[in-house]
Amino acid sequence: MKLNRVGIVSKFGSEESENAAKKVAKKFLASKAEVFTIAPVSVEGAKRIESVDELNDKKLDLVVTMGGDGTTLRTFRSLTNEIPLLTINVGGNRGILSEITLDKIDTAIADMKSNKVWFDKRTRVVASSGGEEYSPALNEIYINRQNMTKTAEFEIKFQNDIVKHKMDGVMISTPSGSTGHSFSLGGPVLHESLDILIITPIAPVLRLLPSIVVPDEKIEVICSHDTNIVMDAQVIKTAGFEESIVIKKHPKRAVFVRLKKRGLRQMGKLGV
Amino acid sequence: MKLNRVGIVSKFGSEESENAAKKVAKKFLASKAEVFTIAPVSVEGAKRIESVDELNDKKLDLVVTMGGDGTTLRTFRSLTNEIPLLTINVGGNRGILSEITLDKIDTAIADMKSNKVWFDKRTRVVASSGGEEYSPALNEIYINRQNMTKTAEFEIKFQNDIVKHKMDGVMISTPSGSTGHSFSLGGPVLHESLDILIITPIAPVLRLLPSIVVPDEKIEVICSHDTNIVMDAQVIKTAGFEESIVIKKHPKRAVFVRLKKRGLRQMGKLGV
Amino acid sequence: MKLNRVGIVSKFGSEESENAAKKVAKKFLASKAEVFTIAPVSVEGAKRIESVDELNDKKLDLVVTMGGDGTTLRTFRSLTNEIPLLTINVGGNRGILSEITLDKIDTAIADMKSNKVWFDKRTRVVASSGGEEYSPALNEIYINRQNMTKTAEFEIKFQNDIVKHKMDGVMISTPSGSTGHSFSLGGPVLHESLDILIITPIAPVLRLLPSIVVPDEKIEVICSHDTNIVMDAQVIKTAGFEESIVIKKHPKRAVFVRLKKRGLRQMGKLGV
Amino acid sequence: MKLNRVGIVSKFGSEESENAAKKVAKKFLASKAEVFTIAPVSVEGAKRIESVDELNDKKLDLVVTMGGDGTTLRTFRSLTNEIPLLTINVGGNRGILSEITLDKIDTAIADMKSNKVWFDKRTRVVASSGGEEYSPALNEIYINRQNMTKTAEFEIKFQNDIVKHKMDGVMISTPSGSTGHSFSLGGPVLHESLDILIITPIAPVLRLLPSIVVPDEKIEVICSHDTNIVMDAQVIKTAGFEESIVIKKHPKRAVFVRLKKRGLRQMGKLGV
Repeated sequence: MKLNRVGIVSKFGSEESENAAKKVAKKFLASKAEVFTIAPVSVEGAKRIESVDELNDKKLDLVVTMGGDGTTLRTFRSLTNEIPLLTINVGGNRGILSEITLDKIDTAIADMKSNKVWFDKRTRVVASSGGEEYSPALNEIYINRQNMTKTAEFEIKFQNDIVKHKMDGVMISTPSGSTGHSFSLGGPVLHESLDILIITPIAPVLRLLPSIVVPDEKIEVICSHDTNIVMDAQVIKTAGFEESIVIKKHPKRAVFVRLKKRGLRQMGKLGV
Repeated sequence: MKLNRVGIVSKFGSEESENAAKKVAKKFLASKAEVFTIAPVSVEGAKRIESVDELNDKKLDLVVTMGGDGTTLRTFRSLTNEIPLLTINVGGNRGILSEITLDKIDTAIADMKSNKVWFDKRTRVVASSGGEEYSPALNEIYINRQNMTKTAEFEIKFQNDIVKHKMDGVMISTPSGSTGHSFSLGGPVLHESLDILIITPIAPVLRLLPSIVVPDEKIEVICSHDTNIVMDAQVIKTAGFEESIVIKKHPKRAVFVRLKKRGLRQMGKLGV
Repeated sequence: MKLNRVGIVSKFGSEESENAAKKVAKKFLASKAEVFTIAPVSVEGAKRIESVDELNDKKLDLVVTMGGDGTTLRTFRSLTNEIPLLTINVGGNRGILSEITLDKIDTAIADMKSNKVWFDKRTRVVASSGGEEYSPALNEIYINRQNMTKTAEFEIKFQNDIVKHKMDGVMISTPSGSTGHSFSLGGPVLHESLDILIITPIAPVLRLLPSIVVPDEKIEVICSHDTNIVMDAQVIKTAGFEESIVIKKHPKRAVFVRLKKRGLRQMGKLGV
Repeated sequence: MKLNRVGIVSKFGSEESENAAKKVAKKFLASKAEVFTIAPVSVEGAKRIESVDELNDKKLDLVVTMGGDGTTLRTFRSLTNEIPLLTINVGGNRGILSEITLDKIDTAIADMKSNKVWFDKRTRVVASSGGEEYSPALNEIYINRQNMTKTAEFEIKFQNDIVKHKMDGVMISTPSGSTGHSFSLGGPVLHESLDILIITPIAPVLRLLPSIVVPDEKIEVICSHDTNIVMDAQVIKTAGFEESIVIKKHPKRAVFVRLKKRGLRQMGKLGV
């Protein structure tokens, strides 16, 4: 793969990640790449930009993230195209989304240059309501009733079907998210290569509604009460009662640079 | 059982329940009982009091509730002693806590007078935190993190043991509550006669923590983030991060007057 | 669709189904089709053959089944090609695989002739071990340890991955089977249009292994003890300990003739 | 506690356990106890008996088991009274029922002599059918249909109630068993001090029947097909279709000698 233009993103407010970012920036500068860092990270020879969003129009070949899963999720949310991400775990986070640790950076650069890597393209979902489209989620969109003293009825529309049931909320998860919050709520694990989504009802009355695995087509959710819409446990939006919330596959996938072989990465995440 | 002093409670703001309350009040007045109604319900010959709380010092033999489960739960929360409740389902609610419909009131009065009824005494739980004790719950106490973008760690202390785990919340349910919200969240059904509680972790990370059934002794819950404490899905209190929340068996049980035989009432609730 | 050559299959030993079969055979004969019945069902003008297997080389346009789900599953198992099946529920069975009841046969024939129907093509799976390939299953293949006093370890191989765990058994289910035995064992519901399979571990020790949804590629299962291999709860085969059992997508799908619109048929099966 | 008469049991056919048994026998002989070993284990000064069953009439103060959980379960099954068991894990088994390893034997003897131990008395269950009572189970009784191609209907009677449902089997577990097979099948964890049982339906059709926690009273199970009845995954009996199987609390509990404090031992077993 080409490595002519590279963006470097580090964890917000983490000195350790910022130092790692500088180190990595220098590696790419040394191999003649044009490098972009995000303020406050500043490296001689690299261009400093103000925010991750500005990476979108820089025609990058690669973005490198330094930090934990929070940093990876935030970076993907800002990217509206399919720039590949190399994710480096810095700072002792759990980092189940990260591919390498900092000490493997030279190998990673060599492997990328000699095309020994592969691109792991993951489905993302995006929610909209009230005329606004929110930022895409790599893992899941979690819709729940705001008021815990009200029994909420959720209507879920998919293709020609409508399911209506009393419950606390609904989670729509991608394969990437299937080992995360969706799993904690009882959902199945999905092989990461699949273009499918899981709809998991949360605390359905009498447990009558199961997790349903569907093609990655439009899902509409309407709740009898006001709801929160939470993207990747990072961004919270709201919808009013009876307001339609539409969840769709995002047109751009999240692309990970992978050095290791393809596989049931998910099972490893569960410690199996 | 004696029926000398009877309180009548109806669903808030429901004309149908209020009319039923008047009708039932007259039945008891006709059989020479001293009858108390709650404003705005007013019946000639009965004493009208302002709120359900005032029933506590009236040395009642019986309280009759008219409405759905909400009315029953609210009445029990106000009662600090073990006055028996006869629960009448009015208004087409689901009413899984109710014993009879209005047309069975004469039979019920006759059965109570001739001691053909039994008292179904149910364990209740009460939460306290920050020096305040909240109102008792018949079904469950639901503790959850307030902020959905923070991964919360919950510490649960029971007897000499501590379990610490990342999750969205914890539910402590009585046998009465075991077919309700606790069941929707994956908890087992408990035979209603047992003096036990279920601790159900909500969305524990990696599903590692199961529902645990324990004796009805003190349970302490401490969360790394601010929490809501919800009693019977009707009353919401809050606790700060790292603040101890103590759940105990309430010294007074909820007492239902039962006309029908003892049994696995719970299974019926589940439609089995 | 063409209806020139039609096979008629009825439930084994059911007089009601056999009578229905005769009635339906006459309908098709009246519209000039060549009709095949299975012994002992015999109709003037139709050809009687000895077993369902013989239908395979008859170049049929349609097979009609009369009975419950058992009859449908058995018929599909015998068919090695993709002949469409019209499934008629006879005899008050639950019949979640059936499309119509007998009184709708005229409409069905008219709709088929005027192409108002669609073909619902379902993934099937086939197991093999010890050099033998078993009959295909529409719903599921259930592998379990034969001896209930032995703790069995199952190894599941998929793509480059191996998962090894102690459990009672493994179920591999198709989308069609996802609302059946697989669902009872805790598996998710799969949208019927998907080319995916569910691997559901049965009673995994410490509940550590979840249901996994995978592409419909080769799955290999090896057990430390002798196992039963059960196809659609109808056919039982066995494999020895450490013997490889391979489950694959069957090259030929099961094809249902559908008169009704496409949809989340599955949810209906669950009564939602 | 008195240690005048001590029985020593070791794992069947394990030289390591037999050597440990000899070593432990000598310890007790040295402290003037009368010691019984089971053939083939033979120690000078100890009495050798032929089988574990013979321990019942020896008026023992203590039985020491050496091996894994299988040995502990088998020993309890043979004991018809409440002799305390000290369980020693030998041979690298998982041994979740064991209290100490061999190197702690001197401390254990000293603690027992000075009454620094406590007796952990556990509920056991016993099944009977066809006029025969089977051996008691410490963990669970597992009833399942013999024929995997037949949909079995199970009737469960408890107190005045009957639940009837299609499923693969029923498990009745004690608190001790609640972290074992019952847990793998989806049951809750029960605090070990409770006198309660869990009835867990196995693969109930449409998942309609949950785990139910009941007082340790008589449970009756009747299946529409022939069943296996499995005690502690060690002993298999059978019952015919429509034959009543009765499960009751065993009059004698299993008594463990505990050196450590009381607590939620169960959670530790789950690795939490």
